[in-house]
Amino acid sequence: MKEPSAQARWERRTQRPLMGLAVVFAVAYAVPIVASPASRSVSVACTIAEWTVWGAFAVDYLVRVALADRRREYVRRHWLDLFAVLLPLLQPLRLLRVVSTLMLVGRRAQMASQVRLTTYVGGAVVGLLMFGSLAVLSVERASPEGNIRTLDDALWWSFTTMTTVGYGDHAPTTGAGRILAVGLMLSGIALLGLVTANIAAWFISRFEMDDLEERRQTAAIAALTDEVRALRAEVAALTVTRERVAEDQPR
Amino acid sequence: MKEPSAQARWERRTQRPLMGLAVVFAVAYAVPIVASPASRSVSVACTIAEWTVWGAFAVDYLVRVALADRRREYVRRHWLDLFAVLLPLLQPLRLLRVVSTLMLVGRRAQMASQVRLTTYVGGAVVGLLMFGSLAVLSVERASPEGNIRTLDDALWWSFTTMTTVGYGDHAPTTGAGRILAVGLMLSGIALLGLVTANIAAWFISRFEMDDLEERRQTAAIAALTDEVRALRAEVAALTVTRERVAEDQPR
Amino acid sequence: MKEPSAQARWERRTQRPLMGLAVVFAVAYAVPIVASPASRSVSVACTIAEWTVWGAFAVDYLVRVALADRRREYVRRHWLDLFAVLLPLLQPLRLLRVVSTLMLVGRRAQMASQVRLTTYVGGAVVGLLMFGSLAVLSVERASPEGNIRTLDDALWWSFTTMTTVGYGDHAPTTGAGRILAVGLMLSGIALLGLVTANIAAWFISRFEMDDLEERRQTAAIAALTDEVRALRAEVAALTVTRERVAEDQPR
Amino acid sequence: MKEPSAQARWERRTQRPLMGLAVVFAVAYAVPIVASPASRSVSVACTIAEWTVWGAFAVDYLVRVALADRRREYVRRHWLDLFAVLLPLLQPLRLLRVVSTLMLVGRRAQMASQVRLTTYVGGAVVGLLMFGSLAVLSVERASPEGNIRTLDDALWWSFTTMTTVGYGDHAPTTGAGRILAVGLMLSGIALLGLVTANIAAWFISRFEMDDLEERRQTAAIAALTDEVRALRAEVAALTVTRERVAEDQPR
Repeated sequence: MKEPSAQARWERRTQRPLMGLAVVFAVAYAVPIVASPASRSVSVACTIAEWTVWGAFAVDYLVRVALADRRREYVRRHWLDLFAVLLPLLQPLRLLRVVSTLMLVGRRAQMASQVRLTTYVGGAVVGLLMFGSLAVLSVERASPEGNIRTLDDALWWSFTTMTTVGYGDHAPTTGAGRILAVGLMLSGIALLGLVTANIAAWFISRFEMDDLEERRQTAAIAALTDEVRALRAEVAALTVTRERVAEDQPR
Repeated sequence: MKEPSAQARWERRTQRPLMGLAVVFAVAYAVPIVASPASRSVSVACTIAEWTVWGAFAVDYLVRVALADRRREYVRRHWLDLFAVLLPLLQPLRLLRVVSTLMLVGRRAQMASQVRLTTYVGGAVVGLLMFGSLAVLSVERASPEGNIRTLDDALWWSFTTMTTVGYGDHAPTTGAGRILAVGLMLSGIALLGLVTANIAAWFISRFEMDDLEERRQTAAIAALTDEVRALRAEVAALTVTRERVAEDQPR
Repeated sequence: MKEPSAQARWERRTQRPLMGLAVVFAVAYAVPIVASPASRSVSVACTIAEWTVWGAFAVDYLVRVALADRRREYVRRHWLDLFAVLLPLLQPLRLLRVVSTLMLVGRRAQMASQVRLTTYVGGAVVGLLMFGSLAVLSVERASPEGNIRTLDDALWWSFTTMTTVGYGDHAPTTGAGRILAVGLMLSGIALLGLVTANIAAWFISRFEMDDLEERRQTAAIAALTDEVRALRAEVAALTVTRERVAEDQPR
Repeated sequence: MKEPSAQARWERRTQRPLMGLAVVFAVAYAVPIVASPASRSVSVACTIAEWTVWGAFAVDYLVRVALADRRREYVRRHWLDLFAVLLPLLQPLRLLRVVSTLMLVGRRAQMASQVRLTTYVGGAVVGLLMFGSLAVLSVERASPEGNIRTLDDALWWSFTTMTTVGYGDHAPTTGAGRILAVGLMLSGIALLGLVTANIAAWFISRFEMDDLEERRQTAAIAALTDEVRALRAEVAALTVTRERVAEDQPR
C-alpha cells in the first residue's frame, strides 16, 4: 500500500510546471484569435499546444488517481476533474477544450493550499476576464449581427458585464456568446459579493464589536480573580499562624 | 379534538406528490409557450393540467385547514395561501394562475423543514428565472413593439435583469411584462444580497475575528489560573507542614 | 421654564395628523401630473393644498423650537429642518417644495421612535420611487428630446434605476431629471446595501460563528475549574486531618 | 542620526498646504476642459500650475526620503510614491500627470491618521467622480464618434457608471476613455461594498449577536466563582478551627 503523502508530494512537485503550461495554453489560445486571420501553420501549432497542455493535465489526473489510497472514492470525490478531462474527447469543440482546461487549471490551483483565497479569486477573475473576452470575440466575430468585433470591444464588454454596469453598447447576439456572458455575470456577482464581504469582515474586525456579553464576562473574570486573591491572602495568613504554632510548640 | 401531529403528518406525506405536480405544472405551462402556435388539443390538455395542479393545491389547503386545531387562526395566519387559492377564481387569467401556483408551491416547499435555506433560495431563483422568461415571452410576443420574441431572448433578458447588468438590448414594453421584470429585479437584488451575505458569513467565521476583548479575557483567565496554581502550591506546603507537625506531635 | 416632556408630548400627539397631511400632499402633488393637462381649478386647489401642508410642517417646526429648552441649540442641531422650512420661500419652485416637504416628513417619521428601522427605510424607498417617478415625469415631459412621457414609463424607469439594472430604454435628458436620477441611484445603492446587510446580520446570528479563541477560552475555564476542584479536595482533606488532630490532642 | 519624529512632524506641518495645492491642481485641471476652447494664456497658466503642484509633491517626497531613518527601505516601502513622482517625467501626457498627482494627494491624505476611513473613501469617490468626468470629457470630445461632449453629459455618465446603473445613453468610445471608465467601475464596486459593509457592521453591532458559546462561558465562569466561594468558606472555617486550637493549646 502506498504512503498517503505520495500524492501530496506529486501535487507539490507538479504545481509549478502545470501552472507554466497553463500560461502556454493561454498564449496558444489567444494568438489565433488576436492575430486573425492567422496563417495555417500558426493555427496548427496552437491547436497542438492546446491539446498538449490538456494532455499534460489528463496525465496529471491519471497519476493522482494511481497514487490515491482508495481509487474509486478519489474518482467519485473528484468527479469534476474526470468530467473536465473527458469533455474535449466527447465534443472536440475549441470552446469546450478551453472550459475544460480552465477547470483543470483552477482545480489544481485550488489544491495548492499555500495560495490565499483572495489571490485565488483575483486570479480566477483575471483569467475569466481574459478568456471570456477572447472566447466571446471568436464567437461573435463570426456572427453577421454581432457588435463585438475587436479585442478592444471584447475586453470593454467583459468589464462592463463583470461589474454589472451593462451599458449595452456591445452585447453578445449568439447563443454561445450569451452562455459565456452569463458565466461572466455570475462571476461578477460573486466578485461583488467577495469584495463586499472582504471589506465587511475587515470593518467588523477593525471597529471591534462592542459586545455586552463579553464585557459581562470580563467583569465576571475580574471579580473571580479578586475572590481568589482574597482566598490566597487568607491561606497565607493561615500558613503563618500554622508555622508560628509549629515553632511555639515544644517538640 | 384532533392531535397536533395530524397536520404535520399530512404535510410530510403530501410533500413529494405535490412537488411532482409542480413539475407537471411547469411542463404544462412551458409547452404552449415554447411550441407556439400549439395545436388546439395540446393547448386544451395543458390548460386542464394547470387547473388540476391548482386544484390539488387547493384541496391540500382545505385539508390543512380541516386538520388545524384552531381553524380561524390558521386561516388568518396563512392568509397568503387563501389568497393564492382564490386568485385564479377571481380573475381566470393565465398569468395569475401561474403566480398563484408558484406561491402555493413556494409555501409548501418552505414548510418542509429539512430543506436548507440556500437550497430553497437557489430553487426559487431558478424557478423565477424559468417562469419569468416564459411569462415575459408569452406577454411580449403579443405586443407589436415587443423585442422579446424567442425563448432564447427571454432567457437572456432574464439573466441580464436578475444580475442587474441590464444591457437594454431586450426590455419589456408592456405593462404586464414590466411588472414581471420588477419581480425579477427585486429577486435579483435579494439574490445578490444573499450571495454576499453567504460569503461574508463564511469569511468572518474563517478569518476568525481577532477580538481585543477576547484576548484580554484569555490573558485574564491565564493570570487567574497562575494565581490558583500558586494558591494550590501554598496549600500543599501547608498540608505537608501540618502532616509533619501531626507526625511530630506525641499522641 | 418648560418641562422637558412638553416637546416629546407635542411630537407624539402631532405624529398622526402630520403623517395624514403627508398623504394629502402626495395626492395634491400627483393629481396635476397624472391628470395632465389638469383644469385650472384643480391645479390651483392642489397648489393651495401643497402650501398648506408645507405651512403645517413649518408651524410644527416653530412649535418644536418654542417648546425646546435651549432654543438656539435646538435650531443648530436641527438645521436641516430649518433649511427645509425656508427652502420653498427662497425659491418657490414646485420641485424644491416637494423636496422640502419630503425632508420634513422624513425627519418627523424618524422622530417616532417606535418605527423600526426596516419600516422607515422601506417607507422611504417607496416614497422616493413614487415622488421620483412623478417629479421626473413632470420634468421630462416638458423636454422635446425626453423619452419619459407617461406615468408607466416613469415608474418603470424608477425601478430600473433604483435596482441599478439601468436598461437605458428610458433615461432622463434634462438637468433636473438627471439630478433626480442621481438621488434615486444613491438610494438604490443604499437599499442594496441595507438588504445585503440585513441578510448578512441574520445569517451570521443564525449560523453562529464558531470562534477558535472562544473555544480556547472555554477550555481554559474548564481547566481552571478542575484546578480549583482539586484544590478544594486538598483543603477538605486538610480540614479532616486538622480535625482529627484536634480531636486526638489532649486538651 | 535623526529623530524618528522629524518625518512625522514634516508630514503634519505640510498636510494642509499640500491639500490646498491639491485644490489648486483641481481648478487648474478643470478650467481648460470646462472653458474649452481656452485662450492660450489661460491654458499656459494652468499647465504651469499643474507642474508646480506636481513639483511641490515631488519635493515633499524627496524631503520625506531625506528625513527617513533608513532611506533605502523607505523608498522600497513607498515605491508607489516614487512611481507617481517619476510618471510625468517618463511620459509628459496630461492624463498621466493627473493620475500621478491624484495618487500623490491620495497617499498624503492617507498618511494623516486623524482622517477617518469613511471620510477618506468619501473624498476619494468625489475626487474620482470629478476627475473622471473631466478626463473622459477631454478625451471623448476629441473623438468623432464620441457621445460625451458636455460637462453635464460627462458628470451624468460618471454617476451612471459608478453606481453600476449603466444606461448606455452615453458611453466612452476611445481606448483612453474606456480605461478611465474601468477605473470608475471598479471604484463603484468598492464604493458599493463599502456602503454595504458599513451598514452591515452597524447592524451587527446593533442587534448584538446572541452567541451560544459565550453564554456557555458566562455560565462556566459563574459556576467556577461559586466553587471558589465554597472553597473560601471552607478555608475560613479551617482558619477559625485552627485559631481556636492554637488558643486552646497550652504554650
